[in-house]
Amino acid sequence: MKVYLDNAATTAMDDRVIEAMIPYMKEHYGNPSSVHSHGREVRSAIEKSRKKVAELLNASPSEIFFTSGGTEADNTAIVCGIHTHGIKHAITSPIEHHAVLHTLEECEKKGFIKLSKVEVDKYGALNLDHLQELLKSNPNSMVSIMHANNEIGNINDLDAIGNLSKEFGAFFHSDTVQTMGHYVHDLKSLPVDSIVAGGHKFHGPKGSGFLYVRKDKKITPFIYGGAQERNMRGGTENVIGIVGIAKALELAYEDMDGHRKHVEGLKSRFIDQLKECIPGVAFNGLSADLDKSLYTVLNVSLPPSEENSGMLLFNLDLHGISASGGSACSSSATVGSHVLRALGASAERDSVRFSFSRFNTADDIDYTVRVLKELYSVIA
Amino acid sequence: MKVYLDNAATTAMDDRVIEAMIPYMKEHYGNPSSVHSHGREVRSAIEKSRKKVAELLNASPSEIFFTSGGTEADNTAIVCGIHTHGIKHAITSPIEHHAVLHTLEECEKKGFIKLSKVEVDKYGALNLDHLQELLKSNPNSMVSIMHANNEIGNINDLDAIGNLSKEFGAFFHSDTVQTMGHYVHDLKSLPVDSIVAGGHKFHGPKGSGFLYVRKDKKITPFIYGGAQERNMRGGTENVIGIVGIAKALELAYEDMDGHRKHVEGLKSRFIDQLKECIPGVAFNGLSADLDKSLYTVLNVSLPPSEENSGMLLFNLDLHGISASGGSACSSSATVGSHVLRALGASAERDSVRFSFSRFNTADDIDYTVRVLKELYSVIA
Ligand SMILES: Cc1ncc(COP(=O)(O)O)c(C=O)c1O
Ligand SMILES: Cc1ncc(COP(=O)(O)O)c(C=O)c1O
Repeated sequence: MKVYLDNAATTAMDDRVIEAMIPYMKEHYGNPSSVHSHGREVRSAIEKSRKKVAELLNASPSEIFFTSGGTEADNTAIVCGIHTHGIKHAITSPIEHHAVLHTLEECEKKGFIKLSKVEVDKYGALNLDHLQELLKSNPNSMVSIMHANNEIGNINDLDAIGNLSKEFGAFFHSDTVQTMGHYVHDLKSLPVDSIVAGGHKFHGPKGSGFLYVRKDKKITPFIYGGAQERNMRGGTENVIGIVGIAKALELAYEDMDGHRKHVEGLKSRFIDQLKECIPGVAFNGLSADLDKSLYTVLNVSLPPSEENSGMLLFNLDLHGISASGGSACSSSATVGSHVLRALGASAERDSVRFSFSRFNTADDIDYTVRVLKELYSVIA
Repeated sequence: MKVYLDNAATTAMDDRVIEAMIPYMKEHYGNPSSVHSHGREVRSAIEKSRKKVAELLNASPSEIFFTSGGTEADNTAIVCGIHTHGIKHAITSPIEHHAVLHTLEECEKKGFIKLSKVEVDKYGALNLDHLQELLKSNPNSMVSIMHANNEIGNINDLDAIGNLSKEFGAFFHSDTVQTMGHYVHDLKSLPVDSIVAGGHKFHGPKGSGFLYVRKDKKITPFIYGGAQERNMRGGTENVIGIVGIAKALELAYEDMDGHRKHVEGLKSRFIDQLKECIPGVAFNGLSADLDKSLYTVLNVSLPPSEENSGMLLFNLDLHGISASGGSACSSSATVGSHVLRALGASAERDSVRFSFSRFNTADDIDYTVRVLKELYSVIA
């Protein structure tokens, strides 16, 4: 049996997304910047995609810019937000994705900003009082705090963070890569200045993404070149990527509640069975709290076991189960997880992130529990 | 009849490229950074693609980095080349693509460099004495000079420019977007430090590209994030784009001489017929010189004509012919061509860039000449 439980890393494409893309591989090949008929039909597909994305997010098409993925979109918001708005100080958390952390650290290294990090507790929950202090002593900062963490699934309160940011004149960027297509984002009410998406996290193509930037917080381009994306991103457009991500988002919104119910059911089932079958099992971050974590992510901390120590992912793979790592240790072979380290997780225990999608079934869960039970039977 | 003569803007994908990509849309969807079987099979496809590209260009796989296109690759080489090597002065030409020009201008605006431009004559030929002077007075510059111009087709002498650059300690980046896949690049002998490609210019996918950076001139990343591309470009890889561009380059090299012979034949035929049928026709840049210009590009300067003034592309489009603009004027409606302006082309004459690919036929050329003859019959 093959079981794919690594959907926070990437998802399988929906067949309907592939179908939407193929005509732009086979028939409609013009350059969208060309004024002739070959170009115009492709330009029209791009602008329809932009309009669709904007509609779903309750934004304006002029606020949506297509990129090569979540990482480029994060880089754009951060680097160009700092540059355009003359920002000298940034605030993030120690458990952001590297697309945010490394980008901000590089900005600090280049002398553009000073960087502060909000404290998190051992569950990865942000200390909002600390955020407020940092904002108070550093007005007009850039705040970059993710919507949900990709490893432990914790969901942050964007309203609280956004309102604090506003109070102290900060630019608030949120990395929404893990929530886009899985949760509703209403940009008329959400107090964010920019958010991002990567299409492959919700059954769209890899190499597709977009950046939303609020109208009154416009930023300069990150990639310079032609006049594409209303002069906001040079480079011939990845037409199939754009058509694909818009279609994937459309499908995600079509039955988001249904998908959520299904996936949340799988996650609950998994938690219940693990507790029953693996003595000493625990869950990292808030991932076992259904209200405070992504319904798509469960980060499992397994009891110390000689047989599996450092080999757990490998052992799962041997049984056909794909999941992701994340130990707290930092050996030379694997750099380990900066997120689990920030939470002070024990290096003795192996951690696995299981992440689900609407393509998973109860059988996938039951099989995985059986395999884990077997792997940990010596200590059971 | 529909005739596509805008192949320098973008090309139709080769069916064999599409075929190579589709399994990575349908079946192999893992994240190449994941260690499990779903990830490993995709990682292997990426590394095979890198190896293939490196082999074709006589480079090492560790010198090839996949990007979202030619523009991102140009930005990376320029911005990060300047940053990594502490460069304070750059030299380019007034007829570079905006991916180079705007990027360098932005670097100047931010105070990173001073920018000088090599003189070009009315045919767009570079003044190499002037380049030498600039290099002499500004050692350790960045030189960014394209291999071939996308509007007028002029081919520059990379050996001469590269050797001069070396003599004066410059970093030599060349925008090879228009020659990649159409000419052989042997990176063991070509004196360049970095070159770039955009897959869609040689029947590969839009949104795919790569950057070559010579081993001993390593640069820092442009996009920060995960450890992808050997820590040189964060972001989940555009797997289908990578598989597609490598396949397209492979096909291009398979019968480059044959393609060239075919396309060069079409270009000659076009030149001959135009001279015969349109009195007063001329050619911009060196594009009518088969030895000094791309065999894929012909930039035609048409005699003044009231019926066609500012309407020529539109008129061609009405007849089903797709080609690209480029007048010397800069009206509010169209920004015009910075290349033709730099050559001092007359604003009275309409210019059209016709660009060819191996998918074009003699019929395409003959039909286009007939249409042009008709459009210009009043003055014939
Ligand atoms: C929270 C978060 N941010 C950013 C990214 C980067 O997205 P991509 O790799 O698609 O560029 C990811 C995906 O790995 C993510 O989970
Ligand atoms: C010479 C040249 N450089 C750079 C580019 C940019 O390539 P892309 O639009 O694929 O990013 C192009 C294509 O338009 C080009 O012709």
